Amino acid sequence: MPSPDDRLRALGIELPDPLSPVATYRMAKRHGDMLYLSGHVCFALDGSGVIAGKVGDDLSDEEGYQAARLTTIHLLATLRGELGSLDAVAAVLKVFAMVNVAPGFTGIPKIADGCTDLLVDVFGDDAGKPARAAVGMAELPLGAAVEIDLVAAVRP
Amino acid sequence: MPSPDDRLRALGIELPDPLSPVATYRMAKRHGDMLYLSGHVCFALDGSGVIAGKVGDDLSDEEGYQAARLTTIHLLATLRGELGSLDAVAAVLKVFAMVNVAPGFTGIPKIADGCTDLLVDVFGDDAGKPARAAVGMAELPLGAAVEIDLVAAVRP
Amino acid sequence: MPSPDDRLRALGIELPDPLSPVATYRMAKRHGDMLYLSGHVCFALDGSGVIAGKVGDDLSDEEGYQAARLTTIHLLATLRGELGSLDAVAAVLKVFAMVNVAPGFTGIPKIADGCTDLLVDVFGDDAGKPARAAVGMAELPLGAAVEIDLVAAVRP
Repeated sequence: MPSPDDRLRALGIELPDPLSPVATYRMAKRHGDMLYLSGHVCFALDGSGVIAGKVGDDLSDEEGYQAARLTTIHLLATLRGELGSLDAVAAVLKVFAMVNVAPGFTGIPKIADGCTDLLVDVFGDDAGKPARAAVGMAELPLGAAVEIDLVAAVRP
Repeated sequence: MPSPDDRLRALGIELPDPLSPVATYRMAKRHGDMLYLSGHVCFALDGSGVIAGKVGDDLSDEEGYQAARLTTIHLLATLRGELGSLDAVAAVLKVFAMVNVAPGFTGIPKIADGCTDLLVDVFGDDAGKPARAAVGMAELPLGAAVEIDLVAAVRP
Repeated sequence: MPSPDDRLRALGIELPDPLSPVATYRMAKRHGDMLYLSGHVCFALDGSGVIAGKVGDDLSDEEGYQAARLTTIHLLATLRGELGSLDAVAAVLKVFAMVNVAPGFTGIPKIADGCTDLLVDVFGDDAGKPARAAVGMAELPLGAAVEIDLVAAVRP
């Protein structure tokens, strides 16, 4: 079975450096075999800042999906940074996908799939497909289009 | 002491088939003795679709309460589907009740009681009364009036 | 190293009695060495009720920060009430800071620092600085300006 790193390579994804906190928190905190990741937002990989705006108005559905996928690339970078290798991820347990929405935008599950489709691609269906909640937020930090946190189980 | 199934019968509640995911996630994911449930929404039991709208505008307080109770019936169906029996639920640890609100609607705790009142009725006060957060969301998937997720402890 | 109680004294903070639930839930629920705290809101310490309003409109940034700090004082009171002593807190794992925002207000991380700055002051950087998500909510219970929940690890 290909490793998560093999799968990333096959997808043509090179993980960036892990994001740094913008305030008083850490990007991840471990307790036993559980790892809590902070809410990550969709920073562009070219360093031009956060993808901002409201899905259903400033961003199309496809752009929203891509923002969720981009956010997940940062989550993966944090996982690898914390654990040394994505091989140490036993399972993604729960994802909370928060989408910055224009009034009346309810197509939230398809936007959140930008996250969980990639998790399944990288970790496989068993380990990578999590429980999930997906919701439409009034506002997000920095005006980000998407914020996502997760809880993962870690190999001992 | 009556079992959760006895209590459901006494309440006249017959659990429906567990909901299926509408996108890339699973309805529940287990890790050790913890079970994470995805955000569930208030699908009508007659198959007519989701109870949609904003509490405080499209839905009255009582209709919002009933939507939270209905959502919880689906959460119970998922718990039974995953565990084989509600007897396997050791405790409901944390509930996150997300209410789709009209601007200015702040009576959120009473709406969320539609969930936790039923959990207490089914599992008793000790096991069934959880820690809880209840909030007012800008939008929810499919326009649902209520979305709820939870974390439960499972008997070994 | 000063104890959390020493640190509170040095900060001039006297913890109030723990808040009581306003509906069907408990303020905290323990499972093994994990303690889930309910969403707490910013009740004034003088008993005059909740600090209500939207940050970015009714409340300034500084007032929002103070509302998050006040909410955290209640979280600390619940932790001490549940555990007997703040010494029993091994670590704060995850904080979810929900800010009641005016449209367009995106300075959410600095408001949420009203919580995590105090946690670091009380428990130190290692134990007190958690993973965090911070978001802007459409509405909160009672119109509160801030609601925060957390998960803590408890000493055996």
